[in-house]
Parts: sequence; structure tokens; C-alpha cells
Amino acid sequence: MGRLTARRPVLRIGADGTTRRRPDSLAVEEPLELRVDGRALSVTMRTPGHDVELAHGFLLTEGVIGSAADLATARYCDSVDADGRNTYNVLDVALAPGVEPPDTSVERNFYTTSSCGVCGKASLDAVRLKTRFTPTGGPVAWSVLATLPDRLREAQKVFASTGGLHAAGLFAPDGTPVVVREDVGRHNAVDKVLGHALLAGGVPAADTVLQVSGRASFELVQKAAMAGVPVLAAVSAPSSLAVELADEVGITLVGFLRDGAGNVYSHPERIAV
Amino acid sequence: MGRLTARRPVLRIGADGTTRRRPDSLAVEEPLELRVDGRALSVTMRTPGHDVELAHGFLLTEGVIGSAADLATARYCDSVDADGRNTYNVLDVALAPGVEPPDTSVERNFYTTSSCGVCGKASLDAVRLKTRFTPTGGPVAWSVLATLPDRLREAQKVFASTGGLHAAGLFAPDGTPVVVREDVGRHNAVDKVLGHALLAGGVPAADTVLQVSGRASFELVQKAAMAGVPVLAAVSAPSSLAVELADEVGITLVGFLRDGAGNVYSHPERIAV
Repeated sequence: MGRLTARRPVLRIGADGTTRRRPDSLAVEEPLELRVDGRALSVTMRTPGHDVELAHGFLLTEGVIGSAADLATARYCDSVDADGRNTYNVLDVALAPGVEPPDTSVERNFYTTSSCGVCGKASLDAVRLKTRFTPTGGPVAWSVLATLPDRLREAQKVFASTGGLHAAGLFAPDGTPVVVREDVGRHNAVDKVLGHALLAGGVPAADTVLQVSGRASFELVQKAAMAGVPVLAAVSAPSSLAVELADEVGITLVGFLRDGAGNVYSHPERIAV
Repeated sequence: MGRLTARRPVLRIGADGTTRRRPDSLAVEEPLELRVDGRALSVTMRTPGHDVELAHGFLLTEGVIGSAADLATARYCDSVDADGRNTYNVLDVALAPGVEPPDTSVERNFYTTSSCGVCGKASLDAVRLKTRFTPTGGPVAWSVLATLPDRLREAQKVFASTGGLHAAGLFAPDGTPVVVREDVGRHNAVDKVLGHALLAGGVPAADTVLQVSGRASFELVQKAAMAGVPVLAAVSAPSSLAVELADEVGITLVGFLRDGAGNVYSHPERIAV
């Protein structure tokens, strides 16, 4: 692609006050507009590349599609910038016949129980209602799980040069990486991974571990649930609602996984110490 | 509030394989639905508290309002959960007479130059068109700037117990904190800080530094620009589009600010070494 990193001059100031000009590598961030059957659905700021995977993962985790066959075609529009070059920043997908197009209203992700109510409980209910798959998987050895943050970091190609990317990786129970993706957006990295799995016939993602580089939010657990992932591990902290959702839908949620230690917040029966 | 952290039992697994059950503090995450004149505008996952600031900051940085007077009232709906308790998760704001309500279409943040085009350049143009204020401020001493990550961390009350929150702080040029806010969402932390500044009559935020705990994305620079903040400093990496936008709108962008050193990516004339 050649678009993953960009070089820019930067003024480096040291702790001793010395300054020098030098070039620096930056992670590229560009908008991607996703259209479904010609209608704009979302605009996300993402790292260019793997956009078709991103679209599949996004539509899977939003509940629009449940299999690769639900999406008939995906192609870049002939969008051009001011200089007449294709931006590759508008992706139009066509749903297969019979697949219902997404609801684009603001409330689409939330099941509101009354005309004026939204709460964590309602959000949990909404996800549970939407999930097509039940997370399934046998025990994962802690000795393997504890190595995944390092394996994820090793597979991160762009982070090393820019320090600017989130990463997500899907791993087999023996620690073998299935797919690793990086993105300026943490949700995008997960969508690209899950979209890749969907396209490879690996959804529902039974017997897998989804490892992420940052924190575990409600939305990341939601994405794991929508793809049938049984174990979600994060290097940093989970939120309260992330733990509640994982508990509710049957996902083993691991947090603060670093230096061989970690916390299991839900469904510890899937961890073999 | 009592809702910033939640206690949960957790299974702690050590690097030596020892396990023990213990309670853990989690950062609370709950949805907030923002309504403008009764119409749903957005749902964001946030840390409860400072919601009125959050609404002001969000509407300011989305270009809906430009002063505190543009927003007539803000009040929680009488939303209740299944147990009949108010969720305090739906906030309805009324715009002052003459203030145009927001466009809720997907494309609202992006100026598309053709029927099928979206690119980084178009995003930059859109922000430039929307910005009401020009970032202004005299030089900031590097010796002060270098202390801001530590000052931000010191002011973070919840992070210490949960490890799960992003932080943003607005500082005077001498390093005095104006306001510091924490949130499970990085955008929310910035919106709460800028909303606080707006309510206190501090927007445009001339002669300030906005310090954030993580990375600098396009959207964070956009928010700084919409509030007239002249210096944005991040502990981690900026993206390519963040640097381009900062350069374009006149913001001094500092990245990798840690241990007294850092990189200045744009407008170094505002830094006094």
C-alpha cells in the first residue's frame, strides 16, 4: 500500500533542552466512508488497508450480516481527490438478496425500554438479543494465554516505527496467530480481525482467543460476542459494563494481562492454570 | 456520585500460576443518550458524571454551539430502569432561539467534494470551514510543558484505583490546571474539559495547553481547534491527519511527551526552549 506510514519533519526536544530537526514516521489516518447499497452508513477514521475486512467485521459486529455470503460485493467507489486521484476512501458494499439493510437511526445499537430510557441493562439486553452465536471453546492454558501480548507485539509491523497503532489478534488455543491487524482506531483493528475470520469461514470463532493491545470496553466485548469469540484478553483494564456483558453472554474476559500475570473477570472455567 | 467505580470479584492469576479471588475496582461505563430539543442526536459510552459539561463540549466541538448562551437548558429525562430508578443516562438540551439544530446525517462531519468522494483533504477543509476561533497564545516554556503529563496523572483520581480511564486537562501557561477530567472514552474526557471551559467563559481557550493521556488523533485536534486551543500535547503518538490538521489550523501539536522530552510536530514557534 505504501500508505500505512507517512514521513514528517519534527522538532525533537530532549530532556536536557537540546533540540534537533529530524524526520519522524507517523501512522496514516484517513476517513473511510462505508456505503451499503449506495447509502452512506458510517464514516470512520482508520488506517488504510484491509478495508474489505473492516467492512465485513463492522457489518458482522453491528448485526447486519452473519456470514460472508450475506455480502454480495464490495468495491471502492470511483472517488477522486482534488488532484483527480482515487482516494480509496469510499467503499460500497451490496447485500445479498434477502439480507435486511441496516437501520441508520441513532438508537440502532440500543434497545430502549421506554420512550425516555437508556441504561446499561438495556444495552446488555440489546446485545443479547442481537447475538447470533454462542461463544464456545474448551479450556485455554494460562501458560499460553500469558504469552499472547508478546506475540501480538511481535506481529505488529507498523507500531514499531510509529508507536501510534492499536492492535488486535485472533489466536488458536495453542497460541498460533490466526490473524493480527493494526489500526489507529481500536474498534477498527478488531473489526478487521473479525472480518478476516468471517471471510475465511472462521465465524463463529469457536476455540479462539481475541487479544487486544489496550483496554476492554463494552463495545469490544460486544464485537467479540457478535463473532462468537469465547475468550477476550486485554493488556489493560476492562470497564464495568464490559465485565457485565462478558458475564452475561458467556465470554471469558481477561484484563491487565502483562508480565505473565492477569485478572479473570468472568467465566474462569475456560482458563486452565 | 458513587457511580465512578464498581467493585467486582476477580480471579487474580500470578506469573507463578498462583490464583486467588479478590475484589477489584472497575471504571464504570454507561451509555449517555444526548437529545437536542427532544430529538436523539447521539449515544456515547461514558463514565457517569459531568454530563452537562460533556454535552456542552460535544456540541461545541461538533460546531452546533459556539457559546454557553447558545444552550438554553440541559436536564436529565425522567428515564427509569427496570427497577424504576432514574438512570440519569438521557440528557435533553434545548438550544437558544436562533441556534440551528444539528444535521444528524452520517456525512455531517465531512465535506464531500463530489457525489462519491471523501479524503483526508476534504476532512481538513470541513474543520477549517467550521472553526469559529483562531488558536491564539504566546510561547509556552518547555520546562513547564514537560511537567504536564505528571500533573495530569496526579490529578487523576479514578485511574489510580481502576487503571481504566483516559484523562484530559486544560492548563494555564504556567502549568496551573484549569480543569482535569477522566472518562472511559478519550473523546469524552476532552469534551468534558472543553465543556467546562465553555461554561466558565473560557472559550475561545486562548493561552492554554490541552494535555491528553493517550494518542493524538484527527478528532482530538479537531476538538482543540473548535475550542480555540493553541497547544495540544499528547503522551503518545499523533496520526498523520492529526499533524496535517494541526499544521493547517495553527495548533502547536506535541507528541511522545514523557520523561522531559518530546516531539513538536507543528507550529514550534509557540514553544520556548
